[in-house]
Order: sequence, then structure tokens, then C-alpha cells
Amino acid sequence: MRVSEIGEKRLIEIISSQFSKAEWVEVGIGDDSSAIKIGEELLVITTDLITKKTDIPREMTPFQIGLSLVAITLSDIAAMGAVPRGILIAMGIPKETELEYIQKICTGIEHACKKFSAPVLGGDISESDELTLTGTAIGVTTKEEILLRKAIPGDNLIVTGEIGGAGAGLEILLRGISGYDHLIKRLLEPTPRIEEGIRIAKSKLARGCIDLSDSLSFALKEMMDINRCGFEIYSDKLPVTKDVKVISEEINIDWRDLVVNTGGDFELLFTVPEENTEKVLELISSSCNATVIGKAVADEKILLDGKEIVPRGFEHFFDK
Amino acid sequence: MRVSEIGEKRLIEIISSQFSKAEWVEVGIGDDSSAIKIGEELLVITTDLITKKTDIPREMTPFQIGLSLVAITLSDIAAMGAVPRGILIAMGIPKETELEYIQKICTGIEHACKKFSAPVLGGDISESDELTLTGTAIGVTTKEEILLRKAIPGDNLIVTGEIGGAGAGLEILLRGISGYDHLIKRLLEPTPRIEEGIRIAKSKLARGCIDLSDSLSFALKEMMDINRCGFEIYSDKLPVTKDVKVISEEINIDWRDLVVNTGGDFELLFTVPEENTEKVLELISSSCNATVIGKAVADEKILLDGKEIVPRGFEHFFDK
Repeated sequence: MRVSEIGEKRLIEIISSQFSKAEWVEVGIGDDSSAIKIGEELLVITTDLITKKTDIPREMTPFQIGLSLVAITLSDIAAMGAVPRGILIAMGIPKETELEYIQKICTGIEHACKKFSAPVLGGDISESDELTLTGTAIGVTTKEEILLRKAIPGDNLIVTGEIGGAGAGLEILLRGISGYDHLIKRLLEPTPRIEEGIRIAKSKLARGCIDLSDSLSFALKEMMDINRCGFEIYSDKLPVTKDVKVISEEINIDWRDLVVNTGGDFELLFTVPEENTEKVLELISSSCNATVIGKAVADEKILLDGKEIVPRGFEHFFDK
Repeated sequence: MRVSEIGEKRLIEIISSQFSKAEWVEVGIGDDSSAIKIGEELLVITTDLITKKTDIPREMTPFQIGLSLVAITLSDIAAMGAVPRGILIAMGIPKETELEYIQKICTGIEHACKKFSAPVLGGDISESDELTLTGTAIGVTTKEEILLRKAIPGDNLIVTGEIGGAGAGLEILLRGISGYDHLIKRLLEPTPRIEEGIRIAKSKLARGCIDLSDSLSFALKEMMDINRCGFEIYSDKLPVTKDVKVISEEINIDWRDLVVNTGGDFELLFTVPEENTEKVLELISSSCNATVIGKAVADEKILLDGKEIVPRGFEHFFDK
């Protein structure tokens, strides 16, 4: 059987079962990042690989490629509520690539690393047919503060910022529609919610957290599989900018589909006990929007406006 | 200018200058691994990217690919004298790849990870045109024990195991010569010197250490540039198996060239003060060969049998 028949998520499930764990591993495969004990602290670590073929839109500048690599990688550190400590960059570079192009990628990397206090610690370079970049980020937290993908029926779902913008941006690029530059920017210049993740982790008010890299519905599916509970979300509560609705109508797509089933927003989704909800909203809103979009329920289903939905989103080998 | 005109080492120099450091970074870009302070400990971290095009010989089985990825990555942890704590694996996989092929790579990864107590902590999968694998390993050590690329004139150079075997193995494969299976195995199934690195680091008897990934002469060049000192080595002292000399004669290559200027052996080179030399030799020889091959000198040159040599070895963008 070929990997294209299996898809990324099932492939990860299959090969993950081949690997064993050690006693110092606090969080293994299956969360946004892994965590291991180092003395009194928890070291959080995550790796992301992007390729020209599937992860880098043609319109992305080299500066934006560097920026995105750091953002995508750090988003998994943010989702654990950890403080970034650095990033390693491995590059597979075609031999005919211009030096200047690589330097611009590095300028983007350095820009994002400075912004989030995550210096480039090291790296590696190899020759490849296709531009391939791997970012590996580390961060620190504690056993008490770490945010895992936990949920209990009754928890409220709080999402940071706005969602659907990156997905709309991709549609705009693919269809060559002009205008809507800020939606395209949303796709090409993602920002990890580092500050919000740390703030909520330190407050210990949230039950859990996950980032919305592949789609809201995929994130809920991951949470559902881990916690054996379901989720209800409501379209009138989803934090969506007006443009996303406008462009959806223009290209004849249901805006709810775009918002729930496309990725690239890199917002955080927190599960929060009812009694802490007001405080969490207040803490997040000092730096960005924070919205309750629904709640965890006992029944293992994902419901949008009361109707069950099949989770969809970006998945390697299945997407064009 | 294209990267193919610059070469891997100069490219790394150029882009490294774009990145800034933070105060918690104990060892930044420029050693085998980087090191950052986490509480009382030093976390050591390194990343390596291998591609089908340049780093994976055609004859390598998927099991050996997995094995090699872990070995190559852990070798940089070994060179710091650190204790491995785990590895992350990111894979770029062409969509037509058979699941079984990936599973065999993972079997090789798990085999090596078990052997060196470095569990797979996490990973990522993306779709690519070419098989591309990134390994990122972490380990722990202390500020007192960490082995850096240090040398002082007068230090003896001690190398573990035998060298030249992997380089000979590659020549054998490229020329389709039969026999010499153990030299081919040396190339296709590298082993990191984890145990030896830890043992010497804990003893605090060595001045410094580097691994021989790209060649002995490249390793000496790196040490020379960092320490502003030179090195003398002697061909009659190089630990070389008889086969390497035999095959060199058969293919009409100077065996000293093969041993000094080809990579893939993943042995460790320690710099050791004269007074600690006997003890270090004794400590290493409980698990593998240990040989004094020469010494550090004041004059910034690399001398083989008293004659200056130009360092050569494997370098991406320059090698076929």
C-alpha cells in the first residue's frame, strides 16, 4: 500500500506504534510537542518539516518562508504554554539556488526568532532536489503549568484571534482574486500565540490547549480521540472577520466550511472549566481577541449548530 | 551567486552571521551540538538532514537508512560527551512511497534508538518529491563535563576505533567491487561512539572532542580555525584495517588519502593533555580501539608525516 492511500494522520498512527518510550518522557508522541524531565523543569520539544511542493505557496517570498517556518514550529511550543528557548534549522537546498534567496530566508528566520526570543541554536545544510526546511523548537515549562490536549465535558472552548483568514487567503491565491491583501498576509505570515499560551499556562486556569494548524475540526477530532468526549460549536460564535464571509460568498463556498475545515491560522484553542472562563477571556483579551465558540460534551461527536460534522482539514498526501 | 559555487561550509559561515544569540545559550552555532542551560543542567541539541540525492547511497536498505539517521544525529551528542535523552524525526516522503518502506525505516530508527537509550520523542511528516529525513537529538551534560572543540599545542590526538573504512566502502560500492562486505557495512551501518564520549567526558581527562563525520582532515581544520593552533599526524599511527590498504592499492588510490580525506566513520577525535593520555587510552580501550595519531602544535597548519596537507572531505554542493 502506498502512503498516498493512507494519508498523513493514519501513517503517523501506524509508525508511532513502532516506537517505545523511556521513563523520563513526560509527554510522548501525540500532543503538540513532546516533553521530557530535565532536573526540576520540563523541556518541551517539537519538529516541523515544510517542503516547497506541499507547504510553501508559490507566492511566498523567501523572507516569508523563514518567518513561517519559525511560526509553525513555535506554534506547537505555544500550545504547550511553554517559554521558547531556541530553534534549530535544517535545510535541504537545491544546488542551483541563489545565495541571496537563502540569506533572505534566514533574515525571515532571524526576524521571527528575535520577536519570540527563540534564538537559532544550530542547524544543518544538505543538498536536495527540492527546498526542504525543518524547524525544531525547544521551550521550558513545569509539570504544573504544561498545557496538554485535555478536555472534560462541560469545559468551554475558547479560541484566540480570528479564524478562517488563512484558508480564505489560500482560496484567493489559488483563484487569482485581487484585493484582500490582509487575508493573503494571514496565510503567508502566520504568528504563533506564544504570549497567550504562556499567560494562560502560568494562570493554571485552563484545562488544555491545542493549536489550529490543520483546521478547527481536525483539532477537535484530536481532542475527541484523546479525551473520549465530543464538542459542540456554534457558527454564530465563531470569530470570523467580515471579509472572510464576503469572499466566501464571492467564490460560492459556505463560509462555515472555510472557517471550520481549513488550516493555517495557528490560533490556540483552550478548553476551560466553566468557573474559569471569564478570567481566561480577560487574560487573553489584553493582547488579542478571545471567544467562547462552544463546549465539550459527553457524546463523542463534533456538532456544528447541533448537526454532526465530519472533520476535514489540511492533510499531507490527501491534499493537492 | 549560486550555493553550488560556495559550498556547504562557506554557506554555513555566511548565514550563521545573520543569527543572534541569547544569554542562556552556552554553546551556539559552531560546535558538534549546541548547548543551553536548563536549571542546573546543560541541554545539548543537534539536527541533521539527509536526502536521498546526496546522503543516502542507493544500496542502503530502508532499515539501514533509519539506523544511519539516528547514528549520524547521535554522533554529535557523543562528541559533546552528553547522555542521549531522545530524538525527533521529521520525514519528507514522496506520495508513491510504499508504507512498508517507511515502516522498515522506522524499524531501523527504533533499533538504533533502543541501543543508545534515545527514544523517539516526536516527529512530523510532509509530502516531498524526494525522501528527506531530519533527525534532531537531545542529550544532557554539565558545564564541567561538556566536551567542546578545544585544543592547546602539546595535546595528543586520540582517535576511537578505525578510520577509512566507510570511505573505502563507498569506493567499493561506486566501482561495483565484490567482497569487502564489512567495509560496505561500515558505510551503511555507522555507529555513534556514545559510550566512549560519555566515559571520557565524565573522567574530565580530555581537553576537547569532535566527531569525524566529513573526514579527519576536515575535523582538524575545524579545530584549527577555532583554536588557532595546528596539528601533526603520522600515517604509521593511523588506525587502519589491512583491507583498507589492500583495496586502496587495488583501485590505485593512496590509502592515506582515503583515511585522512573521506568521511562516514563517525569515530571521535579527542584532544588530550600529555599527562592524561595513558588514562584516556585505557578508558576507551575497554570498549574499542584507541590510538594516539599525533598532536596539536603552535603553527597553524595540518601536517601529515611532516608535510602540510589541504583539508578535504565530504562537502555538500561540492561532492557528486
